[in-house]
Amino acid sequence: MEAPKPVLGQVHDYPGCLIVVEGTDGSGKSTQLQLLQNWLELEGFGTCFTEWNSSRLVSQVIKKGKKSGRLTPTTFCLLHATDFADRQEGIIRPALQAGMVVLADRYMYTALARDVARGADRDWVRNTYTFALIPDAAFYFRVDVETSLLRISATRAPKFYEAGMDLGLADDVYQSYRIFQSRVIEEYDSMVDELGLRVIDGTRPIHDQQSEFRAQVRDVVAARFGPEVISEMRA
Amino acid sequence: MEAPKPVLGQVHDYPGCLIVVEGTDGSGKSTQLQLLQNWLELEGFGTCFTEWNSSRLVSQVIKKGKKSGRLTPTTFCLLHATDFADRQEGIIRPALQAGMVVLADRYMYTALARDVARGADRDWVRNTYTFALIPDAAFYFRVDVETSLLRISATRAPKFYEAGMDLGLADDVYQSYRIFQSRVIEEYDSMVDELGLRVIDGTRPIHDQQSEFRAQVRDVVAARFGPEVISEMRA
Repeated sequence: MEAPKPVLGQVHDYPGCLIVVEGTDGSGKSTQLQLLQNWLELEGFGTCFTEWNSSRLVSQVIKKGKKSGRLTPTTFCLLHATDFADRQEGIIRPALQAGMVVLADRYMYTALARDVARGADRDWVRNTYTFALIPDAAFYFRVDVETSLLRISATRAPKFYEAGMDLGLADDVYQSYRIFQSRVIEEYDSMVDELGLRVIDGTRPIHDQQSEFRAQVRDVVAARFGPEVISEMRA
Repeated sequence: MEAPKPVLGQVHDYPGCLIVVEGTDGSGKSTQLQLLQNWLELEGFGTCFTEWNSSRLVSQVIKKGKKSGRLTPTTFCLLHATDFADRQEGIIRPALQAGMVVLADRYMYTALARDVARGADRDWVRNTYTFALIPDAAFYFRVDVETSLLRISATRAPKFYEAGMDLGLADDVYQSYRIFQSRVIEEYDSMVDELGLRVIDGTRPIHDQQSEFRAQVRDVVAARFGPEVISEMRA
């Protein structure tokens, strides 16, 4: 039987397994991924972590571009796509070929949500990412915008682009954050069914979320590495 | 009457005029554009020159990436698209809004030819450039691959990416250049009718080409600025 046509991206057939987390800032996804990585390593898996906007090739340019306020929605999108493509070829693909569990903190869905919220054309952004490998599982840690804002405000003010201040939505950075990130959440929500995001309620206690996350990852890993790996795994 | 649907890009309605030149290295396009600029300035037009891969935002990254051999066809394409988008918003669009004649040495057609010759998916590359402004006229200075190679070899060896050495087509840089640039020429040729490139035979004497170039540009400029500007122009 032929594999179903991918909705967006390239189906991979490497021995490794690709797991990604998505969500707004303050959704707790990075904490959850860190806990998951510790657990997978204890379970004997080789893991490889990769983060949004961290490629050697362009991440510095993105940071500088953001600082200078020089980025438009189009260059913002293209630079992040370049960062993604560079990490896919330099990190993600080789690690999958080597049979590792690759853990990505943000993936193409971040671009699909943010860039569209920023006003880029949805079809254009999606087409830009057709080169992306489809992950084995994508988890969306969902929180409402007030929870997100409350959590990040505990340690710092919202950043310029994070708050969508480049769009002139509001003079106040907190108000702009609310408007912009509400759009981002709306985009994430609209992807859930179509692109198969697995929703985890990010407002629940950390431990409860982690239990649910591990239970699902166990099945995903088993599907890729074979069911025999599960019996050896602790809860 | 509604404007015809653009084949690729965004129709502009600015007071300025956008003229681009295309062709392989050694096609003579840059020389021709320089001569055209001198002439337009003498005719009293405000001109603005912009060159491929020259944005402040990413051109240095592209140069470094090329040097390190780190670029894949995907990152190569995305970086050049970023460079293009940055120059479009920072230089080309403002100059057109200001009513200038914008002269671009290479435009999106360079990407469509090179990136596809490099193995990127044609539809994907084309979609990437749907944000580009459609020029008032795009001139393709056509030369055969041997002429191109002979001209650049007069002063230097073909460069790594220019020769497509990243594709492993041949061990010898000259041979690789022949194979790769033949593909580029093929792509250019295939765009002539579909995207409306105006072909100028780049093997003719410089003066003859320039006469033909000016005659066509005169009409293009008249179409944008009104026929009265022509009567004042010298041949």
